[in-house]
Amino acid sequence: MYSREIESLLKKNKIRAGDRVVVKKGRQQYEGLLLPRSEAGDSGSLIIKLDSGYNIGIGFKGASLEKIKGGGKGLGKSKEKLLKMDFDKKRPAVSLVTSGGTIVSRVDYKTGGVYAVDDPREFLRTVPELKKVANLSRVVSPVTRMSEDSDWKDWVAIAKAVHKELKKGEGVIVTHGTDTLHYTAAALSFFLQEPGKPVVLLGAQRSSDRGSSDAGMNLLCAAHAALSDIAEVGTCMHSSISDDCCLFIRGTKVKKMNTMRRDAFRPINDLPLAKVFPNGRIEIVNKNHKKRSKKEAKLDVKFEPKVALVKVHPSADPGVLEYHRSKGIRGFVIEGTGLGHVPTKVEKSWIPGIKKLVKDGIPVVVTSQTVYGRVHPSVYANLRTLFQEAKAIPGKDMLSETAFVKLGWVLGHTKDLEEVRSWMEKNVAGEITERSLPETFLY
Amino acid sequence: MYSREIESLLKKNKIRAGDRVVVKKGRQQYEGLLLPRSEAGDSGSLIIKLDSGYNIGIGFKGASLEKIKGGGKGLGKSKEKLLKMDFDKKRPAVSLVTSGGTIVSRVDYKTGGVYAVDDPREFLRTVPELKKVANLSRVVSPVTRMSEDSDWKDWVAIAKAVHKELKKGEGVIVTHGTDTLHYTAAALSFFLQEPGKPVVLLGAQRSSDRGSSDAGMNLLCAAHAALSDIAEVGTCMHSSISDDCCLFIRGTKVKKMNTMRRDAFRPINDLPLAKVFPNGRIEIVNKNHKKRSKKEAKLDVKFEPKVALVKVHPSADPGVLEYHRSKGIRGFVIEGTGLGHVPTKVEKSWIPGIKKLVKDGIPVVVTSQTVYGRVHPSVYANLRTLFQEAKAIPGKDMLSETAFVKLGWVLGHTKDLEEVRSWMEKNVAGEITERSLPETFLY
Repeated sequence: MYSREIESLLKKNKIRAGDRVVVKKGRQQYEGLLLPRSEAGDSGSLIIKLDSGYNIGIGFKGASLEKIKGGGKGLGKSKEKLLKMDFDKKRPAVSLVTSGGTIVSRVDYKTGGVYAVDDPREFLRTVPELKKVANLSRVVSPVTRMSEDSDWKDWVAIAKAVHKELKKGEGVIVTHGTDTLHYTAAALSFFLQEPGKPVVLLGAQRSSDRGSSDAGMNLLCAAHAALSDIAEVGTCMHSSISDDCCLFIRGTKVKKMNTMRRDAFRPINDLPLAKVFPNGRIEIVNKNHKKRSKKEAKLDVKFEPKVALVKVHPSADPGVLEYHRSKGIRGFVIEGTGLGHVPTKVEKSWIPGIKKLVKDGIPVVVTSQTVYGRVHPSVYANLRTLFQEAKAIPGKDMLSETAFVKLGWVLGHTKDLEEVRSWMEKNVAGEITERSLPETFLY
Repeated sequence: MYSREIESLLKKNKIRAGDRVVVKKGRQQYEGLLLPRSEAGDSGSLIIKLDSGYNIGIGFKGASLEKIKGGGKGLGKSKEKLLKMDFDKKRPAVSLVTSGGTIVSRVDYKTGGVYAVDDPREFLRTVPELKKVANLSRVVSPVTRMSEDSDWKDWVAIAKAVHKELKKGEGVIVTHGTDTLHYTAAALSFFLQEPGKPVVLLGAQRSSDRGSSDAGMNLLCAAHAALSDIAEVGTCMHSSISDDCCLFIRGTKVKKMNTMRRDAFRPINDLPLAKVFPNGRIEIVNKNHKKRSKKEAKLDVKFEPKVALVKVHPSADPGVLEYHRSKGIRGFVIEGTGLGHVPTKVEKSWIPGIKKLVKDGIPVVVTSQTVYGRVHPSVYANLRTLFQEAKAIPGKDMLSETAFVKLGWVLGHTKDLEEVRSWMEKNVAGEITERSLPETFLY
């Protein structure tokens, strides 16, 4: 909401967000579309989308506002001309792989809804600074999806596109919806273990045509990260709600921790790889990372999609394991409580069901719903029953989401239970650390 | 592990944790049980459990160590005499309700396991400072359970005991295992909405006989909180890994966020009610809390246990909803992605299943697996389909665990879908806030 003063003027003059307006202030005059007020900004400034694609804020004090009749039908419905983005061929080449999501969407100000843009390159023009950083003229879109609907087929398609693009330039940027961005980041980490160059995923919590959008800065930082020496698969998005820098976080150690905030993506049980500033400065935080190399990246996308992730809770029904098995599930990740517990009360114990699955060769990995910390296979008697008798596999300090993706990847390679156990307990792509640094909690 | 120097001496002299030893240093001599080294402390100090119940650390430099033969079989097996804890009847009375968990457990140093003590009062003697704060002579134990096995029956039993004890003293302390402490805290919040006095839950991440135990300070702070003016149901445990203070956090807004750390319990989408210091100082953080009153507390434990909490993930099978329903489930909480999405891809869309449930009068509440933030019913087209067409109920900024407990409590009162919706969308016990303060993220 704008300030009460602005809102009452808008109401009086029947002006709504999406209308084409002229704002006059002193000797200046601005024409463009009136955008709705963002949550974060100053409620006393009008936000106008200029025809150049830029959004500007104009302090309302001393300004006048006028609607241009017939001047526009809202951003979502009008077909704006796609401004051609010319990149400097002398800049280092970075490929852009787009896959849908808010970052390549825009708001329809008539309905309040968010829709995918027709051409994924459209959003690039909101960040003209990009031209000075990299030559982003290679854009490929293996899939277009809002990320709540992403699954392993998309992960494979994106990985194949990234693998191809790694041969073309200095690094690859992948844009993606934020809901399951961390699942995809984990998948790419296992599919492309030695990329040799940076593979940088990013999304936006606000569509790129909104005044408060994080798309531009995330994209700029991601371009810098893609040109860095850090040859890892990771995400690069806002570090805080101010626009100071982004965090480049390892793909197996990142989770979306907030529904709305621009700094929603956090490292879990790990330090970020680096802080990346919009001006190109890169501050290494975690020295333990892979360096750029000349070796050609290998792609390994063998995957078994029949894996279920199950969160336990008080009175949870263990019969759900048999249900999933009857539908063909070949492996489980159980999100237990605390150090990795499942309910063991006689009438609702999860132990017999787990024991039976493992006996029949179906792996059961246990992670924790505390998000942070490490599953421990022996502190308590019930843990020894679960891990030593029923032979569940401790997920160590893996995120549930990462363990879920990893189990699918491992089962794509072997169904032998002891081999699966050995892979799951071993670090493959940064997903397991042997010791958590105290400062990683709630980073 | 102790330092290499100590470990090699222990090995040479065949001394192990749990053995009875004499340590001589200068003119001092200490006799007691050798405890294993904690993760946090100084590896160059020996930790000895004295017969008084105190644990002390003795710098090894310049000290000598000797085993007393036949002097002890380890803590877990020897029946130590229960030291009678005499409380000062002139101090304000606080009742102690125990329910099992690590806080009333001790380590068996022969197996490394943790076992419940025979008498829950035993752990009180590790905190002699308590005597100066409150008269804790009333101890009741409605249930003894490691909390991975807690369920609604325990919640009801604990609530009834608390309700009774609220009439006896100035406040009530509840000790509980940590795994599901937050589920129980939420349940007590709905069962006892106007307690009139503080109801303070606490647990410990290390058993009370360990050198690094958090039990003592948590108990001391909880006693102070129980005597405060904050008449809310909440948890009171370590604020950080140093022993500076505890956080008193509203029972509907708290989650165990780390498997191991002593500061694992964090406020989610809310400020803590107060910081509570071991010396009794109370620093109010959230002024918006209920004050102590003379009104008698009402108890409302009507509860429908047939509720399932289901976390979605890429490729998740929506058929699990029908499975649960066939087993008698009367309400669902779905932990969606981002702003509250479920998968909508045609062949695996969750929308038809949810629509059918709601049409048949079974409520479906949607929360987010991001932990922090707020579910939004309309930003994206898929959200409008879920909340406006399929008529799922947005969980707002409720924790999944709290929404799960609340739905059981609401269904205990009414099965009418519109009534359930109205209750779920309305704040009852601090579980919904209308606006999240920026500083509550990763508090």
